Amino acid sequence: MIKVAIVGFGNIGRRVLEALEASPDMECVGIVRRELSAVSGYKVVTDIKDLEEVDVAILSTPSRKVEEYAKRILAMGINTVDSFDIHTQIPQLRTTLDSVAKAHDAVAVISAGWDPGSDSVVRTLMESLAPRGITYTNFGPGRSMGHTVAVRAISGVRDALSITIPIGTGLHRRMVYVELEEGADFNKIEQAITTDPYFVNDETHVQQVDSVATLNDVGHGVNLVRKGVSGKTHNQLLEFNMKINNPALTAQVMVNMARASLRQKSGAYTMIEIPVIDMLPGEKEDIIRHLV
Amino acid sequence: MIKVAIVGFGNIGRRVLEALEASPDMECVGIVRRELSAVSGYKVVTDIKDLEEVDVAILSTPSRKVEEYAKRILAMGINTVDSFDIHTQIPQLRTTLDSVAKAHDAVAVISAGWDPGSDSVVRTLMESLAPRGITYTNFGPGRSMGHTVAVRAISGVRDALSITIPIGTGLHRRMVYVELEEGADFNKIEQAITTDPYFVNDETHVQQVDSVATLNDVGHGVNLVRKGVSGKTHNQLLEFNMKINNPALTAQVMVNMARASLRQKSGAYTMIEIPVIDMLPGEKEDIIRHLV
Repeated sequence: MIKVAIVGFGNIGRRVLEALEASPDMECVGIVRRELSAVSGYKVVTDIKDLEEVDVAILSTPSRKVEEYAKRILAMGINTVDSFDIHTQIPQLRTTLDSVAKAHDAVAVISAGWDPGSDSVVRTLMESLAPRGITYTNFGPGRSMGHTVAVRAISGVRDALSITIPIGTGLHRRMVYVELEEGADFNKIEQAITTDPYFVNDETHVQQVDSVATLNDVGHGVNLVRKGVSGKTHNQLLEFNMKINNPALTAQVMVNMARASLRQKSGAYTMIEIPVIDMLPGEKEDIIRHLV
Repeated sequence: MIKVAIVGFGNIGRRVLEALEASPDMECVGIVRRELSAVSGYKVVTDIKDLEEVDVAILSTPSRKVEEYAKRILAMGINTVDSFDIHTQIPQLRTTLDSVAKAHDAVAVISAGWDPGSDSVVRTLMESLAPRGITYTNFGPGRSMGHTVAVRAISGVRDALSITIPIGTGLHRRMVYVELEEGADFNKIEQAITTDPYFVNDETHVQQVDSVATLNDVGHGVNLVRKGVSGKTHNQLLEFNMKINNPALTAQVMVNMARASLRQKSGAYTMIEIPVIDMLPGEKEDIIRHLV
């Protein structure tokens, strides 16, 4: 059994535990939390050094905390998996963690969620199948955390939710639901949102609601399309669609990558650098017979 | 530049040449044919040993010839790529070519087309994302060579075409178009087709036509769907669709795998054992920045 520690126990961490419990070849050997709140049936610690025999740590922490945690855990010779999702900073994180991982004979798998993550694998495969052409990544419908957080930061907003709606060719509509504090001016808040850098380039609709909590739904989706050229043959049409529970899928990908990390040489990897067969439990020959 | 030989110059071989010409990092150093028919601008030989400096041979031969050619060419220390498509015999071919490849420090990439091939990568990724559930592979509309050849073998049939129509949940309708020889009895031929093992389990419609040649279209498609469970969360919906020129896509995959073969350790591989990043030209860092 592969011994896994879960670092951070929010929405994703809880789903990681479920995915580990559902995996035939993995076990959770402990949960690292800021506070020692109990999790039935599992050892909870505040520092990973208080756990023995960890093969892989799954970092279900915010993206901005990933580098700090990963460096420290890799230096203990423990593999790490994260779902770091700040696209522009991925190459830098990979370089940084690659040297730490190699120095301590460990493996870091970075940006292992669905986008970046499994969508990246599909985008790469699609580009290989039709090397000239355009790929559009259309997200949603589903909640955008980045946009939601930007709205929550506006003065007078008690709670907010920003839903991303795909309108094709990689463009998105933003549906923003706001719950206001006593005495707040909706028109001012609407203007603050539509002129915010997060929203200024997109069609944005703001609606006031009594309760944002009643709208909450962790469903999400993607539509990846590519039209391009194989060799010298045009009009090759490729498409990938998902309608999924967002944290459950992210957690499953991280658990798959925990398994895959033990099959790589030391260093840092994005998902497109790892063979898809390594994501599954079982013998290679059986997987090939079943899926090729 | 990666030096590639094309072995076999039929429908696929011609498209392989186009894909090589469109690739920035590869060149065709010769074409191996049974007869020395000229191909403008390229060296044509009847035996690969008459070519110098070949890195990879792309075997665009019938599946039943793959093992014989691959063994001989691997033994010369040259990598091979094939699109062997007899699903049940893939594990055996992989085992056989793996030992030859390792003995001669070469790499064989087998079953590198679209199914088996790129579809296998998608099926494996989908199974990893929702480990419990069912995947359906729905082919078409497009020509099935296996079914077409079975009809052509029936006495009284001058030419035939069997089109595969997807009707969902992995089931297919067969639309069969036959051009008959003088004096042949359509009813007898229809019965021979519908009771043939290739057709007996599928809804099959047979139509007599004046000319099969006028119906020819190398377009094909696939719809891969999986509904399953990530961790303990049900109803995760995944789908992959293609509408493509069949030989052009197969050829592009083979060219991608010729490139990828030079990035693997010696041995035999199916596509699911190779990282998708290895299919693309260029520097890893650039690809990661662009596609992850």
